Amino acid sequence: MKRIAVLTSGGDAPGMNAAVRAIVRKGIYEGFEVYGINYGFAGLVSGDIRKLTPKDVSDTIGRGGTFLYSARFPEFAQREGQEKGIEQLKKFGIEGLVVIGGDGSYRGAVALTKLGFPTVGVPGTIDNDIPGTDYTIGFDTAINTVLEAIDRLRDTATSHVRTFIVEVMGRNAGDIALWTGIGSGAEQILIPEHDYSIENVANEIKRGRENGKKHTIIVLAEGVMSGDELARKLWEHDEDFHTRVTVLGHVQRGGSPTARDRVLASQFGSKAVDLLKDGIGGVAVGIIGDKVIYSDIVDLLENGKHLPNLDLYQLNKEISF
Amino acid sequence: MKRIAVLTSGGDAPGMNAAVRAIVRKGIYEGFEVYGINYGFAGLVSGDIRKLTPKDVSDTIGRGGTFLYSARFPEFAQREGQEKGIEQLKKFGIEGLVVIGGDGSYRGAVALTKLGFPTVGVPGTIDNDIPGTDYTIGFDTAINTVLEAIDRLRDTATSHVRTFIVEVMGRNAGDIALWTGIGSGAEQILIPEHDYSIENVANEIKRGRENGKKHTIIVLAEGVMSGDELARKLWEHDEDFHTRVTVLGHVQRGGSPTARDRVLASQFGSKAVDLLKDGIGGVAVGIIGDKVIYSDIVDLLENGKHLPNLDLYQLNKEISF
Amino acid sequence: MKRIAVLTSGGDAPGMNAAVRAIVRKGIYEGFEVYGINYGFAGLVSGDIRKLTPKDVSDTIGRGGTFLYSARFPEFAQREGQEKGIEQLKKFGIEGLVVIGGDGSYRGAVALTKLGFPTVGVPGTIDNDIPGTDYTIGFDTAINTVLEAIDRLRDTATSHVRTFIVEVMGRNAGDIALWTGIGSGAEQILIPEHDYSIENVANEIKRGRENGKKHTIIVLAEGVMSGDELARKLWEHDEDFHTRVTVLGHVQRGGSPTARDRVLASQFGSKAVDLLKDGIGGVAVGIIGDKVIYSDIVDLLENGKHLPNLDLYQLNKEISF
Amino acid sequence: MKRIAVLTSGGDAPGMNAAVRAIVRKGIYEGFEVYGINYGFAGLVSGDIRKLTPKDVSDTIGRGGTFLYSARFPEFAQREGQEKGIEQLKKFGIEGLVVIGGDGSYRGAVALTKLGFPTVGVPGTIDNDIPGTDYTIGFDTAINTVLEAIDRLRDTATSHVRTFIVEVMGRNAGDIALWTGIGSGAEQILIPEHDYSIENVANEIKRGRENGKKHTIIVLAEGVMSGDELARKLWEHDEDFHTRVTVLGHVQRGGSPTARDRVLASQFGSKAVDLLKDGIGGVAVGIIGDKVIYSDIVDLLENGKHLPNLDLYQLNKEISF
Repeated sequence: MKRIAVLTSGGDAPGMNAAVRAIVRKGIYEGFEVYGINYGFAGLVSGDIRKLTPKDVSDTIGRGGTFLYSARFPEFAQREGQEKGIEQLKKFGIEGLVVIGGDGSYRGAVALTKLGFPTVGVPGTIDNDIPGTDYTIGFDTAINTVLEAIDRLRDTATSHVRTFIVEVMGRNAGDIALWTGIGSGAEQILIPEHDYSIENVANEIKRGRENGKKHTIIVLAEGVMSGDELARKLWEHDEDFHTRVTVLGHVQRGGSPTARDRVLASQFGSKAVDLLKDGIGGVAVGIIGDKVIYSDIVDLLENGKHLPNLDLYQLNKEISF
Repeated sequence: MKRIAVLTSGGDAPGMNAAVRAIVRKGIYEGFEVYGINYGFAGLVSGDIRKLTPKDVSDTIGRGGTFLYSARFPEFAQREGQEKGIEQLKKFGIEGLVVIGGDGSYRGAVALTKLGFPTVGVPGTIDNDIPGTDYTIGFDTAINTVLEAIDRLRDTATSHVRTFIVEVMGRNAGDIALWTGIGSGAEQILIPEHDYSIENVANEIKRGRENGKKHTIIVLAEGVMSGDELARKLWEHDEDFHTRVTVLGHVQRGGSPTARDRVLASQFGSKAVDLLKDGIGGVAVGIIGDKVIYSDIVDLLENGKHLPNLDLYQLNKEISF
Repeated sequence: MKRIAVLTSGGDAPGMNAAVRAIVRKGIYEGFEVYGINYGFAGLVSGDIRKLTPKDVSDTIGRGGTFLYSARFPEFAQREGQEKGIEQLKKFGIEGLVVIGGDGSYRGAVALTKLGFPTVGVPGTIDNDIPGTDYTIGFDTAINTVLEAIDRLRDTATSHVRTFIVEVMGRNAGDIALWTGIGSGAEQILIPEHDYSIENVANEIKRGRENGKKHTIIVLAEGVMSGDELARKLWEHDEDFHTRVTVLGHVQRGGSPTARDRVLASQFGSKAVDLLKDGIGGVAVGIIGDKVIYSDIVDLLENGKHLPNLDLYQLNKEISF
Repeated sequence: MKRIAVLTSGGDAPGMNAAVRAIVRKGIYEGFEVYGINYGFAGLVSGDIRKLTPKDVSDTIGRGGTFLYSARFPEFAQREGQEKGIEQLKKFGIEGLVVIGGDGSYRGAVALTKLGFPTVGVPGTIDNDIPGTDYTIGFDTAINTVLEAIDRLRDTATSHVRTFIVEVMGRNAGDIALWTGIGSGAEQILIPEHDYSIENVANEIKRGRENGKKHTIIVLAEGVMSGDELARKLWEHDEDFHTRVTVLGHVQRGGSPTARDRVLASQFGSKAVDLLKDGIGGVAVGIIGDKVIYSDIVDLLENGKHLPNLDLYQLNKEISF
């Protein structure tokens, strides 16, 4: 195998550039030529492909986003698109592909794998909702971005004795909410993986006020409901409850990656090249128990399940009452 | 005069603590006893007042928010509340008051002034919308917070070739939008002080796309309309226009103050004490042409007018097309 | 057991406050009274001890340093001081102690353990050089602080085509250098756990220049030698080598803890209370393979050995040439 | 005039890229072709010159350093080099030049001016030591970088009850020390523009300790002496004085520019183009009293004098005792 390629797909995440950089440099170190595919699977199908040099990735390790661009491309679910993609890869003489992204990207990688093209998935999404890994590229940066925002909100919450609802990303996963809830000392955390009742939420706010708390911060995973909806429900429950809602939005996706995301992305990128060098495709890399590993990607998508660390949910109950 | 007091009022702003610290330390340096009033005019009326020592303000210069707390208190518009407030001040033997806040706070200060109580206003608000000063405490921090958020959005905007609308604070003033629009290289800035038309906004987006721009960022002052409203209007104008809206919200109010806000707050606080020492009340401090000055506060409220630097609006047209 | 106490010792680390906060809140949650000891073992011996309430730890989770203060206290190596310390603990009715710090602190904890006082160690140091845990409290924050500094240096290094030596902390361990070297894309990393030769270092710099690199950054662990010494050796090797040395110094110890450090500190603090509740002393908590665990502290100090992740050393060779 | 060029010279400063961007875009807006010269005057003499497009400056406004690179080039003091430079400019058909940098750069600009080539100086240096302007590009970013570092040091200083000396940049000017000294609430500030005595410095430290201060921070401008020298002098004065020295070094030059530096750089760049368009050379732009102005550059270099705002020195005495 002499040529490999890399693409980024789905929502962008800080550290994707660091992963691409590692793939390019490690690939060259191992004797490959490395190609970059722009705009994810869309660019794969259209042939938006170019050779990458070390210079192309210099000074990218600290940049947010992805310089290969990303795009949603639902058409890749069709067999036709997939075959077109493989055709393009063959046209460029490419014999192995690394796909960096979330679960949509993994589905594309599985499709290529099933058609016999050696593909390695790399988990890159701020949501941390991918099976086969404890952490995804971008998660650590996102939780620090969120934390900094909540620290700022706390200044104003304390100054005015208020209740703030902070809606954070995570799609159907509560990981971002859990980690930032504990990290910010939030009084309450609401995640999709755990039941809640408006009555309990309201009672906890009241109890805090009675204990002299200057503010209450509720970190709400978007997978539960929107911040506005929670505010409305609390107000319907008790018309005395006026809460301020902050939706952090797309700022959570950006920014220079943290140390951990840069290192993790470098480890993942390097591992992906090792696998392709050894002729191993149809897998996804991950980190489990602080060790870089890989798993069968078809199996992951069919049977894998992501679960956040629910010990943290209990921990928050015990230290942020 | 031996005792003076300080309160913070209205929306909190980074640097308010630095101003209080300067008042306490400069006050003591000049031989005063300095009292802090909690919760703004509400605490003034209820007598929530305590003596402050240098230790109370140690390690506060870098903290966001206000450790004296703030609160809206519309009742202070009534003569009764004002007289109650003066009564409390007299009870504590306080002979001069510094009010840190926005224009609502200035109205309170004017009321006390008209009743004969020596009061000095200090402009503290992120909105920069106070007459009698080029800059308010908190503005510099807020624009840096907004800028960092837009820098993050740009990562994801570039990665996905998107149009982002960023709604920023400022109440009826466009200062935050102007400074952060230029600072972020935003393609368009919409402010209340300048006309706009949806057609122009749309045409500019189109022109950018035709010129190969990977993203468009529009910084929108909340005083023009909400981000959602602008998105809807653009979509009504042309159904091909899908924009992402980010409302930065209350994070803009928080955070550790910048160097400039800490220095400005220290200068303002110190000047306010100088004025009270010289028996001068009924004024507000400010910075004009980089010099710390003071003006008649009654005149400011009645005739003063805040205008942002509209040269910046033109500048953006010329360098961010 | 009804009363427990906590102290911080040795060099301070970001996240120590978050650990103390977790111990206080979790302790109260479990029915304990929790006491804080100021100035580490010095305050233990002198009896500088006070009861802590939830309010004492409110808004501390995001603060760097330690609000219990820390101090070196070599006298605690003597039996006399240790017995004096236990006496003080008994006087306050305290039946269990948590010691947060580095290996010097662990030695104090072992001494108390050997004298029969239930003591739990919590690894808190930026150096990450403690056996029995993959990560210490403060390490994640420190590497992000260092990374941000190197990112800044890179701006100026690139602008001027220069070679920079960055001396980072870590005492005898290379962890900080390894993680920040990879995270910053440094061309070379020098750590105590791996051989080096000046000739190799010089050759690598030359090779980079010949390949058109605009700058070279060498991350040097202080455990190898000082930055000035390396600069001198390079210059003695070849008088054409002019390098700039930056010693990051104590800024590496400070700052608001990262998300990961806040969560880790909360987990460790909570675990320490669980252990004392179960009557388990003479242990130290840690995280291994992403699981919170505990180990015999006497055994750790006598037989434990910290090793950095040397895979990262090899990784850097392969992707930052 | 149809073609203009821009170079950056001397020490790099955050915001230089924003200034180049403004010159390129404003230049194009005004109908010019704009050329970039790499490596300052060295590149001018060697003809390292290329046309710049809007795309070349896209996404540069937030980047530290200078993408045109900078270099010291003492040879430009010779008439021969200057004439060679003008020759190169003529070869490219360039009729006006913008030089961004510190006073060395201004000397180069004056030389070209005296030889009849229309040149405009733009003050870019973190040191703020240029006559003809209240602020230089990069100063605001540098003081915020320094402030963040001192905030970190304060964490550890407080934790250990220590005296820290922080040596900051500024060459012969005390501006950085003054602003960051006030901004950090430093107990003492030492600047070249004001006398000091070791005895006074020592007495102030003692007085602070007696008043129960947990730490003392002394901000020392490098123009006074080095941090190590001050530490030695204090120790020679009184052997009980053990101080920690932190030399912030080149990190002060880097980093993403602040809002103010980005706006200032944009204003300066735009103004420089306006001047060349109006046929005005031999001048330098500046901001005085918050207005963008320009002055005769020959006169500035011969008679101009930079003075920091010494009111801040007195202010610090009054509020940080």
